Amino acid sequence: MRPYVVVNVAMSADGKLSTRERRQVKISGQSDFARVDRLKAGCDAVMVGIGTVLADDPSLTVKADECRKLRRDRGENEHPVRIVIDSTARIPSDASILHKGEGKRIVAVSARADSQRVENLKEHATVIVAGEGEVDLALLMEELGTMGIQRVMVEGGGTIIAGLLAAGLVDEIYTFIGNIIIGGRDAPTLADGPGFTREEDFSRLTLLEAKQMERGILLHWVVNNQ
Amino acid sequence: MRPYVVVNVAMSADGKLSTRERRQVKISGQSDFARVDRLKAGCDAVMVGIGTVLADDPSLTVKADECRKLRRDRGENEHPVRIVIDSTARIPSDASILHKGEGKRIVAVSARADSQRVENLKEHATVIVAGEGEVDLALLMEELGTMGIQRVMVEGGGTIIAGLLAAGLVDEIYTFIGNIIIGGRDAPTLADGPGFTREEDFSRLTLLEAKQMERGILLHWVVNNQ
Repeated sequence: MRPYVVVNVAMSADGKLSTRERRQVKISGQSDFARVDRLKAGCDAVMVGIGTVLADDPSLTVKADECRKLRRDRGENEHPVRIVIDSTARIPSDASILHKGEGKRIVAVSARADSQRVENLKEHATVIVAGEGEVDLALLMEELGTMGIQRVMVEGGGTIIAGLLAAGLVDEIYTFIGNIIIGGRDAPTLADGPGFTREEDFSRLTLLEAKQMERGILLHWVVNNQ
Repeated sequence: MRPYVVVNVAMSADGKLSTRERRQVKISGQSDFARVDRLKAGCDAVMVGIGTVLADDPSLTVKADECRKLRRDRGENEHPVRIVIDSTARIPSDASILHKGEGKRIVAVSARADSQRVENLKEHATVIVAGEGEVDLALLMEELGTMGIQRVMVEGGGTIIAGLLAAGLVDEIYTFIGNIIIGGRDAPTLADGPGFTREEDFSRLTLLEAKQMERGILLHWVVNNQ
Protein backbone atom coordinates (compact mmCIF):
# COMPACT_ATOMS: atom_id res chain seq x y z
CA MET A 1 0.00 0.00 0.00
CA ARG A 2 1.29 3.43 -0.90
CA PRO A 3 2.07 5.93 1.87
CA TYR A 4 -0.28 8.77 2.85
CA VAL A 5 1.07 11.87 1.09
CA VAL A 6 0.91 15.41 2.46
CA VAL A 7 2.09 18.32 0.34
CA ASN A 8 3.24 21.47 2.09
CA VAL A 9 4.23 24.72 0.37
CA ALA A 10 4.39 28.42 1.05
CA MET A 11 3.27 30.59 -1.84
CA SER A 12 2.87 34.28 -2.53
CA ALA A 13 -0.62 35.76 -2.94
CA ASP A 14 -0.19 35.24 -6.69
CA GLY A 15 0.68 31.56 -6.25
CA LYS A 16 4.47 31.61 -6.67
CA LEU A 17 6.82 29.36 -4.67
CA SER A 18 9.91 31.45 -5.47
CA THR A 19 11.17 34.00 -7.99
CA ARG A 20 11.61 33.17 -11.67
CA GLU A 21 15.29 32.51 -10.86
CA ARG A 22 14.04 29.88 -8.37
CA ARG A 23 15.53 31.88 -5.55
CA GLN A 24 13.77 31.06 -2.31
CA VAL A 25 12.25 34.08 -0.60
CA LYS A 26 10.73 34.68 2.81
CA ILE A 27 7.00 34.06 2.38
CA SER A 28 6.09 32.97 5.91
CA GLY A 29 7.58 33.51 9.36
CA GLN A 30 8.54 31.75 12.59
CA SER A 31 5.17 30.30 13.54
CA ASP A 32 4.62 28.79 10.11
CA PHE A 33 8.20 27.51 10.16
CA ALA A 34 7.46 25.78 13.49
CA ARG A 35 4.26 24.27 12.08
CA VAL A 36 6.14 22.86 9.09
CA ASP A 37 8.82 21.46 11.40
CA ARG A 38 6.17 19.64 13.46
CA LEU A 39 4.48 18.36 10.32
CA LYS A 40 7.81 17.04 9.08
CA ALA A 41 8.62 15.44 12.43
CA GLY A 42 5.33 13.55 12.23
CA CYS A 43 6.17 11.95 8.89
CA ASP A 44 8.27 8.91 8.06
CA ALA A 45 9.81 10.60 5.07
CA VAL A 46 10.13 13.97 3.40
CA MET A 47 10.37 14.22 -0.38
CA VAL A 48 11.59 16.83 -2.86
CA GLY A 49 12.43 16.99 -6.55
CA ILE A 50 15.97 17.42 -7.84
CA GLY A 51 15.10 20.95 -9.02
CA THR A 52 14.56 21.99 -5.42
CA VAL A 53 17.82 20.34 -4.33
CA LEU A 54 19.78 22.14 -7.06
CA ALA A 55 18.10 25.50 -6.38
CA ASP A 56 18.03 25.57 -2.57
CA ASP A 57 20.30 22.77 -1.32
CA PRO A 58 17.96 22.05 1.62
CA SER A 59 18.86 19.54 4.33
CA LEU A 60 15.19 18.84 5.22
CA THR A 61 16.19 18.00 8.77
CA VAL A 62 13.86 18.50 11.74
CA LYS A 63 14.98 21.74 13.37
CA ALA A 64 13.33 21.98 16.80
CA ASP A 65 14.99 20.10 19.69
CA GLU A 66 11.62 19.04 21.12
CA CYS A 67 10.51 17.59 17.78
CA ARG A 68 13.74 15.62 17.45
CA LYS A 69 13.41 14.41 21.05
CA LEU A 70 9.84 13.26 20.37
CA ARG A 71 11.10 11.20 17.46
CA ARG A 72 13.93 9.70 19.51
CA ASP A 73 11.44 8.86 22.29
CA ARG A 74 9.37 7.00 19.72
CA GLY A 75 12.46 5.01 18.76
CA GLU A 76 12.83 6.78 15.43
CA ASN A 77 15.72 8.57 13.81
CA GLU A 78 15.85 12.29 14.60
CA HIS A 79 15.01 13.08 11.00
CA PRO A 80 12.55 11.48 8.59
CA VAL A 81 13.93 9.55 5.63
CA ARG A 82 14.98 12.11 3.03
CA ILE A 83 13.84 11.24 -0.50
CA VAL A 84 14.93 12.96 -3.72
CA ILE A 85 13.21 12.38 -7.08
CA ASP A 86 16.08 12.57 -9.54
CA SER A 87 15.46 10.68 -12.80
CA THR A 88 18.98 11.10 -14.18
CA ALA A 89 20.92 11.02 -10.88
CA ARG A 90 22.03 14.64 -11.14
CA ILE A 91 22.26 15.20 -7.38
CA PRO A 92 25.70 16.56 -6.38
CA SER A 93 27.57 14.21 -4.05
CA ASP A 94 28.02 17.07 -1.57
CA ALA A 95 24.32 18.02 -1.44
CA SER A 96 23.28 18.90 2.13
CA ILE A 97 20.38 16.48 2.00
CA LEU A 98 22.87 13.59 1.68
CA HIS A 99 25.01 14.66 4.62
CA LYS A 100 23.27 16.81 7.23
CA GLY A 101 21.74 14.95 10.16
CA GLU A 102 21.47 11.25 10.85
CA GLY A 103 18.98 9.02 9.12
CA LYS A 104 18.29 7.27 5.86
CA ARG A 105 18.33 8.79 2.38
CA ILE A 106 16.63 7.51 -0.74
CA VAL A 107 17.28 8.78 -4.25
CA ALA A 108 14.75 7.66 -6.84
CA VAL A 109 16.11 7.46 -10.37
CA SER A 110 14.83 6.04 -13.65
CA ALA A 111 16.39 3.40 -15.88
CA ARG A 112 18.07 6.11 -17.97
CA ALA A 113 20.27 7.33 -15.10
CA ASP A 114 23.99 6.89 -15.77
CA SER A 115 25.14 3.69 -14.04
CA GLN A 116 28.39 5.20 -12.75
CA ARG A 117 26.51 8.09 -11.19
CA VAL A 118 24.11 5.62 -9.60
CA GLU A 119 27.03 3.57 -8.21
CA ASN A 120 28.58 6.71 -6.69
CA LEU A 121 25.26 7.71 -5.19
CA LYS A 122 25.01 4.41 -3.34
CA GLU A 123 27.76 5.63 -0.97
CA HIS A 124 25.29 8.14 0.45
CA ALA A 125 21.81 6.84 -0.26
CA THR A 126 19.60 3.91 -1.07
CA VAL A 127 18.86 4.10 -4.79
CA ILE A 128 15.46 3.04 -6.09
CA VAL A 129 15.09 2.59 -9.85
CA ALA A 130 11.49 3.16 -10.90
CA GLY A 131 10.36 3.84 -14.46
CA GLU A 132 12.07 4.22 -17.81
CA GLY A 133 12.27 7.91 -18.77
CA GLU A 134 11.05 9.84 -15.75
CA VAL A 135 10.67 8.33 -12.28
CA ASP A 136 7.40 6.37 -12.14
CA LEU A 137 5.91 8.01 -9.06
CA ALA A 138 3.18 5.40 -8.48
CA LEU A 139 5.71 2.58 -8.63
CA LEU A 140 8.04 4.49 -6.32
CA MET A 141 5.25 5.07 -3.80
CA GLU A 142 4.39 1.35 -3.79
CA GLU A 143 8.06 0.60 -3.15
CA LEU A 144 8.19 3.11 -0.30
CA GLY A 145 5.10 1.48 1.22
CA THR A 146 6.80 -1.91 1.07
CA MET A 147 9.74 -0.40 2.94
CA GLY A 148 7.42 0.59 5.78
CA ILE A 149 7.12 4.27 4.95
CA GLN A 150 3.52 5.17 5.77
CA ARG A 151 3.46 8.96 5.74
CA VAL A 152 5.37 11.20 3.34
CA MET A 153 5.60 14.98 3.34
CA VAL A 154 6.34 16.58 -0.03
CA GLU A 155 8.02 19.98 0.03
CA GLY A 156 8.16 20.64 -3.75
CA GLY A 157 8.91 21.69 -6.30
CA GLY A 158 5.97 22.33 -8.56
CA THR A 159 6.93 19.71 -11.13
CA ILE A 160 7.00 16.83 -8.64
CA ILE A 161 3.79 17.97 -6.99
CA ALA A 162 2.07 18.22 -10.38
CA GLY A 163 3.25 14.69 -11.22
CA LEU A 164 1.99 13.32 -7.90
CA LEU A 165 -1.38 15.06 -8.30
CA ALA A 166 -1.80 13.82 -11.87
CA ALA A 167 -1.12 10.29 -10.65
CA GLY A 168 -3.67 10.60 -7.82
CA LEU A 169 -0.96 10.16 -5.19
CA VAL A 170 -1.62 13.22 -2.99
CA ASP A 171 -3.94 13.08 0.04
CA GLU A 172 -3.61 16.49 1.68
CA ILE A 173 -2.23 19.88 0.71
CA TYR A 174 -1.22 22.70 3.02
CA THR A 175 -0.69 26.05 1.32
CA PHE A 176 0.48 28.99 3.36
CA ILE A 177 -0.36 32.11 1.35
CA GLY A 178 1.88 35.03 2.22
CA ASN A 179 1.25 38.76 1.90
CA ILE A 180 3.52 39.42 -1.08
CA ILE A 181 3.29 39.36 -4.86
CA ILE A 182 6.32 37.75 -6.53
CA GLY A 183 4.92 37.69 -10.07
CA GLY A 184 6.52 36.24 -13.18
CA ARG A 185 5.11 33.94 -15.82
CA ASP A 186 8.14 31.66 -15.35
CA ALA A 187 8.18 31.57 -11.55
CA PRO A 188 7.41 28.11 -10.07
CA THR A 189 3.94 27.38 -8.70
CA LEU A 190 2.36 24.63 -6.61
CA ALA A 191 1.55 22.57 -9.70
CA ASP A 192 3.67 23.10 -12.81
CA GLY A 193 4.32 20.41 -15.41
CA PRO A 194 2.06 20.37 -18.48
CA GLY A 195 -1.07 21.00 -16.39
CA PHE A 196 -4.59 19.80 -17.00
CA THR A 197 -6.76 21.04 -19.85
CA ARG A 198 -9.99 19.05 -19.35
CA GLU A 199 -12.16 19.84 -16.34
CA GLU A 200 -12.64 16.14 -15.59
CA ASP A 201 -8.89 15.84 -15.08
CA PHE A 202 -8.56 18.68 -12.54
CA SER A 203 -7.73 17.53 -9.03
CA ARG A 204 -10.74 18.36 -6.83
CA LEU A 205 -10.15 19.43 -3.26
CA THR A 206 -12.10 19.97 -0.06
CA LEU A 207 -11.13 22.92 2.11
CA LEU A 208 -10.76 21.52 5.63
CA GLU A 209 -9.56 24.63 7.37
CA ALA A 210 -8.44 28.19 6.76
CA LYS A 211 -6.44 29.89 9.48
CA GLN A 212 -4.97 33.37 9.48
CA MET A 213 -1.34 33.19 10.56
CA GLU A 214 1.27 35.91 10.66
CA ARG A 215 0.37 38.22 7.76
CA GLY A 216 -1.03 35.50 5.54
CA ILE A 217 -3.35 32.54 5.70
CA LEU A 218 -2.87 28.79 5.93
CA LEU A 219 -5.23 26.70 3.80
CA HIS A 220 -5.58 23.00 4.51
CA TRP A 221 -7.03 21.02 1.60
CA VAL A 222 -7.90 17.35 1.27
CA VAL A 223 -7.67 15.86 -2.20
CA ASN A 224 -10.81 14.03 -3.34
CA ASN A 225 -9.12 11.00 -4.85
CA GLN A 226 -11.42 8.29 -6.14
CA MET B 1 -5.45 62.05 -9.68
CA ARG B 2 -5.46 58.42 -10.75
CA PRO B 3 -8.54 56.25 -10.02
CA TYR B 4 -8.71 53.80 -7.12
CA VAL B 5 -7.94 50.37 -8.61
CA VAL B 6 -9.45 47.08 -7.44
CA VAL B 7 -8.25 43.80 -8.96
CA ASN B 8 -10.59 40.82 -8.89
CA VAL B 9 -9.72 37.30 -10.02
CA ALA B 10 -10.74 33.71 -9.39
CA MET B 11 -7.83 31.28 -9.19
CA SER B 12 -7.38 27.58 -8.60
CA ALA B 13 -5.73 26.38 -5.38
CA ASP B 14 -2.45 26.35 -7.31
CA GLY B 15 -2.87 29.95 -8.42
CA LYS B 16 -4.01 29.52 -12.03
CA LEU B 17 -6.58 31.80 -13.70
CA SER B 18 -7.27 29.35 -16.54
CA THR B 19 -5.71 26.38 -18.33
CA ARG B 20 -2.45 26.66 -20.25
CA GLU B 21 -4.60 27.11 -23.39
CA ARG B 22 -6.13 30.16 -21.63
CA ARG B 23 -9.50 28.44 -21.65
CA GLN B 24 -11.67 29.84 -18.89
CA VAL B 25 -12.91 27.22 -16.42
CA LYS B 26 -15.45 27.24 -13.64
CA ILE B 27 -13.51 28.12 -10.49
CA SER B 28 -16.25 29.75 -8.42
CA GLY B 29 -20.05 29.54 -8.35
CA GLN B 30 -23.20 31.67 -8.23
CA SER B 31 -22.59 33.51 -4.97
CA ASP B 32 -19.10 34.60 -6.02
CA PHE B 33 -20.48 35.54 -9.42
CA ALA B 34 -23.06 37.77 -7.70
CA ARG B 35 -20.35 39.35 -5.54
CA VAL B 36 -18.26 40.18 -8.61
CA ASP B 37 -21.30 41.63 -10.35
CA ARG B 38 -21.95 43.93 -7.38
CA LEU B 39 -18.28 44.94 -7.23
CA LYS B 40 -18.38 45.76 -10.94
CA ALA B 41 -21.62 47.73 -10.59
CA GLY B 42 -19.96 49.86 -7.92
CA CYS B 43 -17.09 50.92 -10.21
CA ASP B 44 -16.91 53.63 -12.85
CA ALA B 45 -14.95 51.41 -15.20
CA VAL B 46 -13.87 47.82 -15.68
CA MET B 47 -10.53 47.04 -17.34
CA VAL B 48 -9.00 44.00 -19.06
CA GLY B 49 -5.99 43.28 -21.24
CA ILE B 50 -6.28 42.37 -24.91
CA GLY B 51 -5.19 38.78 -24.08
CA THR B 52 -8.35 38.29 -22.04
CA VAL B 53 -10.50 39.78 -24.82
CA LEU B 54 -8.96 37.46 -27.42
CA ALA B 55 -9.21 34.38 -25.17
CA ASP B 56 -12.67 34.85 -23.61
CA ASP B 57 -14.46 37.59 -25.58
CA PRO B 58 -16.13 38.90 -22.40
CA SER B 59 -18.73 41.66 -22.51
CA LEU B 60 -18.01 42.79 -18.92
CA THR B 61 -21.57 44.03 -18.55
CA VAL B 62 -23.38 44.15 -15.22
CA LYS B 63 -25.62 41.07 -15.16
CA ALA B 64 -28.08 41.45 -12.28
CA ASP B 65 -31.20 43.56 -12.91
CA GLU B 66 -31.07 45.10 -9.44
CA CYS B 67 -27.45 46.19 -9.93
CA ARG B 68 -28.27 47.79 -13.26
CA LYS B 69 -31.29 49.50 -11.72
CA LEU B 70 -29.14 50.87 -8.91
CA ARG B 71 -26.82 52.39 -11.47
CA ARG B 72 -29.70 53.92 -13.44
CA ASP B 73 -31.14 55.35 -10.22
CA ARG B 74 -27.80 57.02 -9.59
CA GLY B 75 -27.98 58.57 -13.06
CA GLU B 76 -25.24 56.32 -14.45
CA ASN B 77 -25.11 54.06 -17.46
CA GLU B 78 -26.23 50.49 -16.76
CA HIS B 79 -22.67 49.29 -17.28
CA PRO B 80 -19.35 50.78 -16.21
CA VAL B 81 -17.03 52.15 -18.89
CA ARG B 82 -15.31 49.17 -20.49
CA ILE B 83 -11.54 49.65 -20.95
CA VAL B 84 -9.21 47.43 -22.97
CA ILE B 85 -5.41 47.69 -22.78
CA ASP B 86 -4.33 46.90 -26.32
CA SER B 87 -0.95 48.39 -27.28
CA THR B 88 -1.14 47.46 -30.97
CA ALA B 89 -4.92 47.81 -31.46
CA ARG B 90 -5.46 44.11 -32.08
CA ILE B 91 -9.03 44.06 -30.76
CA PRO B 92 -11.43 42.55 -33.34
CA SER B 93 -14.10 45.02 -34.47
CA ASP B 94 -16.80 42.49 -33.51
CA ALA B 95 -15.53 41.91 -29.95
CA SER B 96 -18.44 41.61 -27.48
CA ILE B 97 -16.94 44.24 -25.23
CA LEU B 98 -17.37 46.82 -28.01
CA HIS B 99 -21.01 45.96 -28.69
CA LYS B 100 -22.89 44.37 -25.80
CA GLY B 101 -24.77 46.74 -23.50
CA GLU B 102 -24.94 50.53 -23.51
CA GLY B 103 -22.18 52.72 -22.18
CA LYS B 104 -18.78 54.06 -23.07
CA ARG B 105 -15.76 52.06 -24.26
CA ILE B 106 -12.12 53.06 -24.10
CA VAL B 107 -9.31 51.26 -25.89
CA ALA B 108 -5.83 52.22 -24.72
CA VAL B 109 -3.13 51.83 -27.37
CA SER B 110 0.49 52.91 -27.66
CA ALA B 111 2.14 55.07 -30.31
CA ARG B 112 3.14 51.97 -32.29
CA ALA B 113 -0.48 50.94 -33.02
CA ASP B 114 -1.32 50.97 -36.73
CA SER B 115 -3.05 54.27 -37.54
CA GLN B 116 -5.67 52.68 -39.81
CA ARG B 117 -6.61 50.19 -37.08
CA VAL B 118 -6.87 53.06 -34.62
CA GLU B 119 -9.11 55.01 -37.01
CA ASN B 120 -11.41 51.98 -37.43
CA LEU B 121 -11.54 51.49 -33.69
CA LYS B 122 -12.83 55.01 -33.17
CA GLU B 123 -16.19 53.89 -34.58
CA HIS B 124 -16.73 51.82 -31.46
CA ALA B 125 -14.57 53.33 -28.73
CA THR B 126 -12.68 56.30 -27.43
CA VAL B 127 -9.02 55.66 -28.17
CA ILE B 128 -6.37 56.85 -25.72
CA VAL B 129 -2.76 56.81 -26.92
CA ALA B 130 -0.41 56.41 -23.94
CA GLY B 131 3.21 55.34 -24.20
CA GLU B 132 5.56 54.39 -27.01
CA GLY B 133 6.01 50.59 -27.07
CA GLU B 134 3.57 49.21 -24.52
CA VAL B 135 0.71 51.19 -23.04
CA ASP B 136 2.07 53.43 -20.28
CA LEU B 137 -0.28 52.37 -17.49
CA ALA B 138 0.52 55.25 -15.13
CA LEU B 139 -0.10 57.79 -17.89
CA LEU B 140 -3.32 56.04 -18.85
CA MET B 141 -4.55 56.07 -15.26
CA GLU B 142 -3.88 59.80 -14.99
CA GLU B 143 -5.85 60.30 -18.19
CA LEU B 144 -8.74 58.20 -16.84
CA GLY B 145 -8.73 60.29 -13.67
CA THR B 146 -8.97 63.47 -15.74
CA MET B 147 -12.01 61.98 -17.49
CA GLY B 148 -13.75 61.62 -14.12
CA ILE B 149 -13.19 57.88 -13.68
CA GLN B 150 -12.59 57.43 -9.95
CA ARG B 151 -12.86 53.69 -9.38
CA VAL B 152 -11.64 50.96 -11.75
CA MET B 153 -12.08 47.22 -11.43
CA VAL B 154 -9.46 45.10 -13.20
CA GLU B 155 -10.49 41.60 -14.24
CA GLY B 156 -7.18 40.43 -15.75
CA GLY B 157 -5.26 38.98 -17.24
CA GLY B 158 -2.05 38.29 -15.40
CA THR B 159 0.14 40.44 -17.64
CA ILE B 160 -1.89 43.63 -17.13
CA ILE B 161 -2.23 43.00 -13.40
CA ALA B 162 1.53 42.46 -13.09
CA GLY B 163 2.15 45.70 -14.98
CA LEU B 164 -0.25 47.62 -12.75
CA LEU B 165 1.31 46.16 -9.59
CA ALA B 166 4.84 46.93 -10.76
CA ALA B 167 3.79 50.53 -11.39
CA GLY B 168 2.20 50.83 -7.92
CA LEU B 169 -1.24 51.37 -9.43
CA VAL B 170 -3.27 48.72 -7.56
CA ASP B 171 -5.07 49.48 -4.29
CA GLU B 172 -7.01 46.30 -3.48
CA ILE B 173 -7.00 42.70 -4.66
CA TYR B 174 -9.77 40.13 -4.30
CA THR B 175 -8.72 36.56 -4.99
CA PHE B 176 -11.31 33.83 -4.86
CA ILE B 177 -9.43 30.54 -4.44
CA GLY B 178 -11.39 27.58 -5.75
CA ASN B 179 -11.16 23.92 -4.79
CA ILE B 180 -9.42 22.66 -7.92
CA ILE B 181 -5.89 22.22 -9.19
CA ILE B 182 -5.44 23.31 -12.83
CA GLY B 183 -1.66 23.00 -12.94
CA GLY B 184 0.67 23.89 -15.79
CA ARG B 185 3.86 25.90 -15.86
CA ASP B 186 2.42 27.96 -18.73
CA ALA B 187 -1.05 28.56 -17.31
CA PRO B 188 -1.79 32.23 -16.51
CA THR B 189 -1.57 33.46 -12.92
CA LEU B 190 -2.60 36.60 -11.04
CA ALA B 191 0.73 38.28 -11.78
CA ASP B 192 2.67 37.16 -14.84
CA GLY B 193 5.02 39.39 -16.82
CA PRO B 194 8.73 39.22 -15.94
CA GLY B 195 8.04 39.15 -12.19
CA PHE B 196 10.11 40.58 -9.39
CA THR B 197 13.47 39.16 -8.34
CA ARG B 198 14.48 41.49 -5.48
CA GLU B 199 12.54 41.31 -2.24
CA GLU B 200 12.39 45.09 -1.99
CA ASP B 201 10.43 45.13 -5.26
CA PHE B 202 7.73 42.65 -4.21
CA SER B 203 4.31 44.17 -3.75
CA ARG B 204 3.43 43.94 -0.03
CA LEU B 205 -0.16 43.31 0.95
CA THR B 206 -2.33 43.38 4.04
CA LEU B 207 -4.96 40.68 4.40
CA LEU B 208 -8.20 42.52 5.24
CA GLU B 209 -10.55 39.56 5.26
CA ALA B 210 -10.76 35.87 4.48
CA LYS B 211 -14.19 34.39 3.96
CA GLN B 212 -15.09 30.83 3.09
CA MET B 213 -17.53 30.82 0.18
CA GLU B 214 -18.91 27.93 -1.78
CA ARG B 215 -16.12 25.35 -1.79
CA GLY B 216 -13.29 27.85 -1.75
CA ILE B 217 -12.23 30.99 0.03
CA LEU B 218 -12.29 34.67 -0.83
CA LEU B 219 -9.22 36.66 0.21
CA HIS B 220 -9.39 40.43 0.30
CA TRP B 221 -5.99 42.11 0.22
CA VAL B 222 -5.00 45.77 0.39
CA VAL B 223 -1.79 46.76 -1.38
CA ASN B 224 0.67 48.67 0.79
CA ASN B 225 1.66 51.32 -1.75
CA GLN B 226 3.99 54.03 -0.49
